[in-house]
Amino acid sequence: MGEPKMQAVQAIIEPVEAFIAESERLKPELYKRKVTPGRLIEVIRDETVIHGWKTNKLADIEELKVYVLGKGDSIILDFSDHRVGFLSFKVRPVGSPPDAPLKLKLTFGEMPVEMAEPFSEYEGWVSSSWLQEETLYIDVLPRRIELPRRYSFRYLKLEVLATSVKYRVVFEDVICNTVTSADHSAVRPLDHPDALLQEIDRVSIRTLEDCMHDVFEDGPKRDRRLWLGDLRLQALANYATFRNFDLVKRCLYLFAGVPDQKGRVSANLFKEPAIIADDTYLFDYSLFYTTSLFDYYTASKDEETLKALWPTAKRQVELAIENLDPQGLVQDQDTWWAFIDWHPELNKQASSQAILIYTIKRAIQLAEILNCDSKKALADALTKAINGAFSTLWDPGSGFFVSGAGRQVSWATQIWFALAEVFPKEQNKQLMLRLLNSPPAIGLSTPYMHHHLVEALLVSGCTEEGVACLKSYWGGMLTDGADTFWELYDPSNKNFSPYGSYLINSYCHAWSCTPTYLIRQYGL
Amino acid sequence: MGEPKMQAVQAIIEPVEAFIAESERLKPELYKRKVTPGRLIEVIRDETVIHGWKTNKLADIEELKVYVLGKGDSIILDFSDHRVGFLSFKVRPVGSPPDAPLKLKLTFGEMPVEMAEPFSEYEGWVSSSWLQEETLYIDVLPRRIELPRRYSFRYLKLEVLATSVKYRVVFEDVICNTVTSADHSAVRPLDHPDALLQEIDRVSIRTLEDCMHDVFEDGPKRDRRLWLGDLRLQALANYATFRNFDLVKRCLYLFAGVPDQKGRVSANLFKEPAIIADDTYLFDYSLFYTTSLFDYYTASKDEETLKALWPTAKRQVELAIENLDPQGLVQDQDTWWAFIDWHPELNKQASSQAILIYTIKRAIQLAEILNCDSKKALADALTKAINGAFSTLWDPGSGFFVSGAGRQVSWATQIWFALAEVFPKEQNKQLMLRLLNSPPAIGLSTPYMHHHLVEALLVSGCTEEGVACLKSYWGGMLTDGADTFWELYDPSNKNFSPYGSYLINSYCHAWSCTPTYLIRQYGL
Repeated sequence: MGEPKMQAVQAIIEPVEAFIAESERLKPELYKRKVTPGRLIEVIRDETVIHGWKTNKLADIEELKVYVLGKGDSIILDFSDHRVGFLSFKVRPVGSPPDAPLKLKLTFGEMPVEMAEPFSEYEGWVSSSWLQEETLYIDVLPRRIELPRRYSFRYLKLEVLATSVKYRVVFEDVICNTVTSADHSAVRPLDHPDALLQEIDRVSIRTLEDCMHDVFEDGPKRDRRLWLGDLRLQALANYATFRNFDLVKRCLYLFAGVPDQKGRVSANLFKEPAIIADDTYLFDYSLFYTTSLFDYYTASKDEETLKALWPTAKRQVELAIENLDPQGLVQDQDTWWAFIDWHPELNKQASSQAILIYTIKRAIQLAEILNCDSKKALADALTKAINGAFSTLWDPGSGFFVSGAGRQVSWATQIWFALAEVFPKEQNKQLMLRLLNSPPAIGLSTPYMHHHLVEALLVSGCTEEGVACLKSYWGGMLTDGADTFWELYDPSNKNFSPYGSYLINSYCHAWSCTPTYLIRQYGL
Repeated sequence: MGEPKMQAVQAIIEPVEAFIAESERLKPELYKRKVTPGRLIEVIRDETVIHGWKTNKLADIEELKVYVLGKGDSIILDFSDHRVGFLSFKVRPVGSPPDAPLKLKLTFGEMPVEMAEPFSEYEGWVSSSWLQEETLYIDVLPRRIELPRRYSFRYLKLEVLATSVKYRVVFEDVICNTVTSADHSAVRPLDHPDALLQEIDRVSIRTLEDCMHDVFEDGPKRDRRLWLGDLRLQALANYATFRNFDLVKRCLYLFAGVPDQKGRVSANLFKEPAIIADDTYLFDYSLFYTTSLFDYYTASKDEETLKALWPTAKRQVELAIENLDPQGLVQDQDTWWAFIDWHPELNKQASSQAILIYTIKRAIQLAEILNCDSKKALADALTKAINGAFSTLWDPGSGFFVSGAGRQVSWATQIWFALAEVFPKEQNKQLMLRLLNSPPAIGLSTPYMHHHLVEALLVSGCTEEGVACLKSYWGGMLTDGADTFWELYDPSNKNFSPYGSYLINSYCHAWSCTPTYLIRQYGL
């Protein structure tokens, strides 16, 4: 996820050293693999494809040595699939001995557009420093270059900005050393009769793989960070595929290791130079700590971790409950933030209410397993929150839940109430069918929210509609050329970006990896 | 020196491993020193100063911590004097935890103009890769950055190209680790009664110091390379100051280590990745190998080295003699190149003839010391070359030597004939006075040629004129703000560059360091 809302809360962190130490102990070894580019390409204008750029093969990679580059020349290498790792290559001079440094620009792209449109034109609000490029001065040739930073890309442009008039250069032995903590051998083959679902499953797993490093990252291009909202979905996909329980456990310990004075967990963490809680706190993300622990225990039956982290999980729910108004409602104020979805007009009160209900239900189950005293208080709060929702947020006339003072009807609100299962299954199904048949104007803008739409359909028994939605949305990305699933995809506006430019969007993003979970968990 | 004439001669190198090994053995340890900037400055427009830019102090360096830089902000640090070395600094974030990489641009400048005019506007023929800048992406903050390349600069611009909206940065502990093979403790204090000569001597020594690394370099900004023409002058200044005989010896062994099949030494060498002879061969520079060995022996009395390298030195003279025409004249053809000076219209035949005479005279002295059989042949060649010069190149009517089919009269020609001492001293003096009083249109364009002018005046007994010229030319650079003496300086056109822009000129250049030699050697 990117920046949901610009904020910097003054929070005093009270580190729990034992938790931080445990997370450190769980730090995974990374699997490394050498990958070479498959071909040289060019990028050409085509208004019929996404972003208006398509690739065209120029030569097999064996021909690389034929390309002798002087000042102003460039080549684009295609690594055949999305890659996350470290680049190295050899560059050697041709002609006289190099009598001036080589000035070289490298541009990395997940998508063809990143090879075609200059990054210098980007003017969005998210930092341009995420655009992946380097300018190198190489004093001595020939030389093997090993770049110290990790990149996320399929395409690499090598551009000679300056040599001297006396020499040109040839590139050789270009390698990406990929890194991931995902173990492919752990994935059960799917062999699905539906070829599209089979392909969506494969690309989901590739997406998850490229987001798994020493933590679950939201996106390897941007922000390369552990966000709770992404972690929750990655963990679910991981249980259905790589089954790396320790990595989830590590991330749960990390969040529990840096709570604020109230015990609240941050929406995201930085790993370096040390573990740091970001000063962003989100209502929904904090609650997802609790649901993530629930999911982890359900998948792993690791009671020891459950016991250790239950106080942190319980605390998130308590903090949310403490802030309910007398009617048991999440207050529609600017004193708190929830993410829910990237949508500038979305009122987030009702979705947050539903997420609280969804979470309390799971917290109660954990309290029961642990025979925790809080069972009763949680059950009371649940009743209060559900009653509050029905008395104020439910609009019997339209048959939809509404949100905020403006009584806004949105997709997100209905979806989250369906997931919270406040209705019996059949009524839940009616809610979802009503939503599909009478779509509100405030729609969905992320794969993240589309995941919740599909899961709400599945939970409420609309399996056919859920599968259709999954195939249409994620299948659409495949048709549009996805190697891994994207951070953002709006089929009606394929240039959509909440940041000001599609150049800065992430095209391998954790919250898009869930179809493998949906397909495998729900037996689609 | 830069590129005298674009050329790439097909030469087969026959390495002499014993010489290369000896040069390796002589590789010096470098003296290292930590230097910090003294102040923060701004660069402001002023048409009355060189290049139109002057500096203005903004704050003492202690105030650096007050400068909190966000996107688009920059500061300029002034290191108080010319520096050659490695930069390191600390950068720490201010505000929220850094949620995007820091994109930082560093620009190094020997002169204020390099801080003011964008390098992107440079369009000259010498590679723009010599312009000293770096663009860094820093993923983790705070961090100490240690740049691996060596820079030549007084000014450093730190420019924040991108952070995120959530943090800014502060720079701390900025250090240049300077490197040189010059030992200051070996320099005899001068205490000259003339303050200007005293200052010119000091700056000459600083210039030489900053060009002394593991070889004598022409300029630490550009080309950072061992050129024979520069080596000769550096060695002379070095004998009068640092007296690092081993470094000269090493350079002489390096050139002798990679001759071509004919035994010819290249005009310049590359040290990395291994010792490589450039494919540029210059008539005058090859001969300067011989005169450099003569100067080295004269200063050091190192007979062992003289014996070892005499065959190489003798061979350069033989090759030049072999190519004389039947009248004993250097042929005015495009089949060979001499540097002489950066002047597009200069005909180089006569200067080359004079340099040959100058060289043969010294070769004869070495042959006598070694009692070498070639004495007689050299003496015959000297006579022939002098006779050729007088019969064809001397114009009694004008009292000047002429060059080429066009019988061009130039400063360079007269200067080199005075240095070759083909006349008795008094006649030599008349030649030089005539030159000063009736200046030819083809003038001097480099400090390199100005050195030869001053030395020619001194050799011919025009001491007063020599000192006046030295003070006016090098003193002019001081008035124009030189911390070290420059590669190029034309008092009548201070924006002069043979490369297309003053941005690419080198402002610390070996061939400008000779005043300390002239002052000390001639007792000025």
